[in-house]
Amino acid sequence: MEKLKLADLKDVKIKDPFWDRHTQLVKSEILDYQWRAMNDQIEDAPPSHCIENFRIAAGESDGEFFGAVFQDSDVAKWLEAVAYTLAAEPDAELKKRADGVIDLIGRAQQPDGYFNTYFILKEPGKRFQNLCEGHELYTLGHMIEAAVAYNQATGERRFLEIVCRMADLVADTFGPEEGKLHGMPGHEEIELALVRLYEVTGERKYLETAKYFIDVRGTGEKNYFLKEMEQEGFRNIFPEFEDYQPEYSQSHLPVREQRTAEGHAVRAVYLYSAMADLADLYHDEKLFEACTKLWDNIVQRRMYVTGGIGSSGILERFTTDYDLPNDCNYGETCASIGLVLFGRRMAQITRDARYIDVAERALYNTVLAGIALDGKSFFYVNPLEVWPDNCMERTSKEHVKSIRQKWFGVACCPPNIARTLSSLGQYIYGYDKHTLFVNLFIGNETELELEGGRIRVSLETEFPYKNTYSLRIHGEAGRMTLALRIPDYAVDYRIFQDGTEAVYTAEKGYAYISGDFSGKTLEVRFRSEPRFIRANPAVRADEGKVCMMNGPLVYALEEADNGANLSGIYLDTSTRPAMRLDPELFGGTWVLSADGYRIAADSWAPGELYKEEKPKFLKTEVRAIPYAYWNNRGKGEMTVWVKEWI
Amino acid sequence: MEKLKLADLKDVKIKDPFWDRHTQLVKSEILDYQWRAMNDQIEDAPPSHCIENFRIAAGESDGEFFGAVFQDSDVAKWLEAVAYTLAAEPDAELKKRADGVIDLIGRAQQPDGYFNTYFILKEPGKRFQNLCEGHELYTLGHMIEAAVAYNQATGERRFLEIVCRMADLVADTFGPEEGKLHGMPGHEEIELALVRLYEVTGERKYLETAKYFIDVRGTGEKNYFLKEMEQEGFRNIFPEFEDYQPEYSQSHLPVREQRTAEGHAVRAVYLYSAMADLADLYHDEKLFEACTKLWDNIVQRRMYVTGGIGSSGILERFTTDYDLPNDCNYGETCASIGLVLFGRRMAQITRDARYIDVAERALYNTVLAGIALDGKSFFYVNPLEVWPDNCMERTSKEHVKSIRQKWFGVACCPPNIARTLSSLGQYIYGYDKHTLFVNLFIGNETELELEGGRIRVSLETEFPYKNTYSLRIHGEAGRMTLALRIPDYAVDYRIFQDGTEAVYTAEKGYAYISGDFSGKTLEVRFRSEPRFIRANPAVRADEGKVCMMNGPLVYALEEADNGANLSGIYLDTSTRPAMRLDPELFGGTWVLSADGYRIAADSWAPGELYKEEKPKFLKTEVRAIPYAYWNNRGKGEMTVWVKEWI
Repeated sequence: MEKLKLADLKDVKIKDPFWDRHTQLVKSEILDYQWRAMNDQIEDAPPSHCIENFRIAAGESDGEFFGAVFQDSDVAKWLEAVAYTLAAEPDAELKKRADGVIDLIGRAQQPDGYFNTYFILKEPGKRFQNLCEGHELYTLGHMIEAAVAYNQATGERRFLEIVCRMADLVADTFGPEEGKLHGMPGHEEIELALVRLYEVTGERKYLETAKYFIDVRGTGEKNYFLKEMEQEGFRNIFPEFEDYQPEYSQSHLPVREQRTAEGHAVRAVYLYSAMADLADLYHDEKLFEACTKLWDNIVQRRMYVTGGIGSSGILERFTTDYDLPNDCNYGETCASIGLVLFGRRMAQITRDARYIDVAERALYNTVLAGIALDGKSFFYVNPLEVWPDNCMERTSKEHVKSIRQKWFGVACCPPNIARTLSSLGQYIYGYDKHTLFVNLFIGNETELELEGGRIRVSLETEFPYKNTYSLRIHGEAGRMTLALRIPDYAVDYRIFQDGTEAVYTAEKGYAYISGDFSGKTLEVRFRSEPRFIRANPAVRADEGKVCMMNGPLVYALEEADNGANLSGIYLDTSTRPAMRLDPELFGGTWVLSADGYRIAADSWAPGELYKEEKPKFLKTEVRAIPYAYWNNRGKGEMTVWVKEWI
Repeated sequence: MEKLKLADLKDVKIKDPFWDRHTQLVKSEILDYQWRAMNDQIEDAPPSHCIENFRIAAGESDGEFFGAVFQDSDVAKWLEAVAYTLAAEPDAELKKRADGVIDLIGRAQQPDGYFNTYFILKEPGKRFQNLCEGHELYTLGHMIEAAVAYNQATGERRFLEIVCRMADLVADTFGPEEGKLHGMPGHEEIELALVRLYEVTGERKYLETAKYFIDVRGTGEKNYFLKEMEQEGFRNIFPEFEDYQPEYSQSHLPVREQRTAEGHAVRAVYLYSAMADLADLYHDEKLFEACTKLWDNIVQRRMYVTGGIGSSGILERFTTDYDLPNDCNYGETCASIGLVLFGRRMAQITRDARYIDVAERALYNTVLAGIALDGKSFFYVNPLEVWPDNCMERTSKEHVKSIRQKWFGVACCPPNIARTLSSLGQYIYGYDKHTLFVNLFIGNETELELEGGRIRVSLETEFPYKNTYSLRIHGEAGRMTLALRIPDYAVDYRIFQDGTEAVYTAEKGYAYISGDFSGKTLEVRFRSEPRFIRANPAVRADEGKVCMMNGPLVYALEEADNGANLSGIYLDTSTRPAMRLDPELFGGTWVLSADGYRIAADSWAPGELYKEEKPKFLKTEVRAIPYAYWNNRGKGEMTVWVKEWI
């Protein structure tokens, strides 16, 4: 079965009370803020220099390369976000700024198509010799994604041509043939990008190069990256890679044999996304089986309730099943974005809504938490429990920041959030010839081309605070099928067609209903009350604890609402949390509250550290806000998991 | 008031049912095992090479220096342990081996007295130029301690002369005078060693050099170590020191102004021990006040219930008040040994038993846990909670080992345990002209010189399992005072003299009783039932939890007794834990048991990660063994803190 298509972003207009504040921020605030960050114009933020690097590489400015080896990729992700924003609505000034950058990239490109400011400026003659750490292919991957998006948004080919020239060089350089390099990227990303480039250009060598990178990974007698490190004159870019483990880059086994998610979490989910693409395009069952097993391993054993992944602060990596510490995890924003990319692909291929359940979880929680409500500061690491006092520099918790940062030395997350928010329209629907899949409950108006012709759909909702939405098919649609996602938290799922309850068949998380819906309005209603969620008891960190959820939203306790020392709070779970609108909070937010108890500390002097005394408990009302919104009221404690009163 | 004297180890014979198995192991097993480790003769253990380094430095062997910059210090601590062992009982063969090493050190010594195999072999001409990382003074400190001990044990001066020559060089090199270096050690240790050297030689310049190192630390316009790093040609020995923070070496403030324990925990407590020595010798009230405040900061806010210190795995350091994570802490064995050294000094100066309470806590728990019951494997890091599955290499928990190691690349802890166990006899008593202080309840026979003459004391006990001991004063002692420690866990403390209850006055944790006890036997009895201990609620990691203690012993749950997943266990604290002898366990061990509940996992499929279902609980009996003995039955989960059933 053909994989589901996604709506063209040009044809999607989001209008949603929950999401508008975030998605509209991309155009009104984020792109300009990030532009200034990339030009070192944000006060007290770490320098980026990434635009200046291109000027120097183009010979138009003096100075030295500055930044990480993958600094160019920030520019790429920013351009990709610009492209999606322009697709939604033309903006001459924004386009002019982007065109200027694209032209600059073109001028920095070398005669043979190569461009990468780090290698041009700092390591000329060393290209493709340190694939493990060099990130040239990773960076090109992001450039390709940006160029594809820019082409789709504007119809212009300039950027596409630039990346094609380097993609051609890559296709000529890597491959199974003798004389070519038999390596693959140390950080996956180009694989899924080359698939996108193939899809927009029809040029098969891009697909074949992607497939080669997938096929060669983890094969051979000796790991490619370890061989690289044995080359004479090899010098580590990252000191921590001196003692390199192939698991880090998922190169420990041929990909088709991998069954557990290992290594650096962002690398992993970018790889798995490409594996899904290729499994579909090549009808590669073994590859697809690996995707399924890897997905299951993540979401059934290695994923936070917030959709975060990567349990270890060191090496930003997966660890072992059920190891999900809350206060020292990594849970990188980019990793959750990658999980969304992977899940969307799996849903497109399988028409199984369980992949959307997870993508939705990641989007509504970790991805959104990655950015402040004003769009001007960001989390790279997403803990589920923070005690700011112990998030100290030069300690085991130094990677955990208790407040969002204006920018980062390694700034992958901010522009990744921008491109995700600006492409949210692609996650709402999937479709094939006859069937329209409604995946996310986000208000929008969208046009799509089904076999019966072009249709216009509009969706209205107050989700996630009201569990109902109306879906209207405008104009003449003819006979079609609607596949309406039944989320895993839905109870009593019902569909009404112009007021009359409709019969549906449920399959793999979708309610299927067929007919001619031209000019009709469907109303979908389900129950989903605020609930207490527990983790599998194998998750040591969460035993005896609950978290509160409403729909896909995970809730968190903050010091601002509950005072300090959230670890001393117990939730009384005998009645459900109550939900109410707090009109003052962030311009109107639905909060949860529940009865609880807290350990009384008044019988302890500050200098008493250990004694026999039995704890006393005080009754308290516990208040929680969406995890996505935490840390928008200054520094303070936060926790998702709360002790359960038994 | 003069500080209390300690018994000469030559005059103490320990005979104690609890401690014998550990202390006797030093001579029967540990010294030989560690000798073989230092000579790279332990299979599958990391190489040490530390003896060979001396041979190479002496020009008697080819090859290159191998090991850490402070590799020599392992030899020193081993020699110190040998010295204490020889003091207890002469052993010609052991002494011959030690003499051989001492002669070798002498042959490796340079004409001007300098010896340090790293700098002789690897960085000739660079001595004292990288005090921050070079550890020359630290290493010399351990050599001095060993030489002093060896002199006291054997009466021989050869080793003492060797270290005096380098100590003379150090005294000539460092000091306030113009032309001298105005620096101090990056790792404190030599300060307390120079005080010992002064005490045994009477040579005042050693004391003055120690005082200089204390006085100069943290002074000056710019931190000495940061200045060092700015020297031309400076090269970091430890990459992680590139971004050096003076707090790490307690050089962020003049020591008299320090109020919180900061930085590397071992460095800190070695420094504070020397500060206490000097505060006493110079009657320096400001310095002593700093000692008191630093002690209080540690034991009231930054110490584990096991006497472990150092909350951060990264940089092995103190973090912030009440930050005491159980599963990712450092809690280095050496740091607890340093805490014992500091506490002993504070008790000697103040005659306040609260310092002994802490030293006892560290000795009976973390120090003992640092070594296996067979003496052949060691913990460097002492967690209070271990789930072996997640103690993975290259993750945030990589420093936590779930089983004791045969040896270490940095092997400071094993010989430090050896010197501590072999000098345990110094911790039992303190005394001045008239008063004998009984600090630890360890069976022994000891001779001491009071003003009234030489007395012989014997102490018999089954402590910590029975809370009674008898103290007999043999021969003619004359009128004297006994100060018998009332430990912080004692209830209903009573003293009987030959069967009749005696009246005592209590002051600062001691029961004072005076009289002529010649030929008399005192029996001390107190109640101390097994108990549930809670932490100050500000300790987030322990809220809602209890640990079990009996006397000074902290108890731990192990998987071997309680099955896996100890985080799912709740202790019913409504009745006290029961104590009983398990004759099979480690040749007879008193274990604790209590009623409890555990979360039932049977309704969770392995692939279910999050759901609403309320937890069900199963009644269970919980069994705990002394923390000191954990991990002597193979790999498994362990926890000290257990959820409390409320």
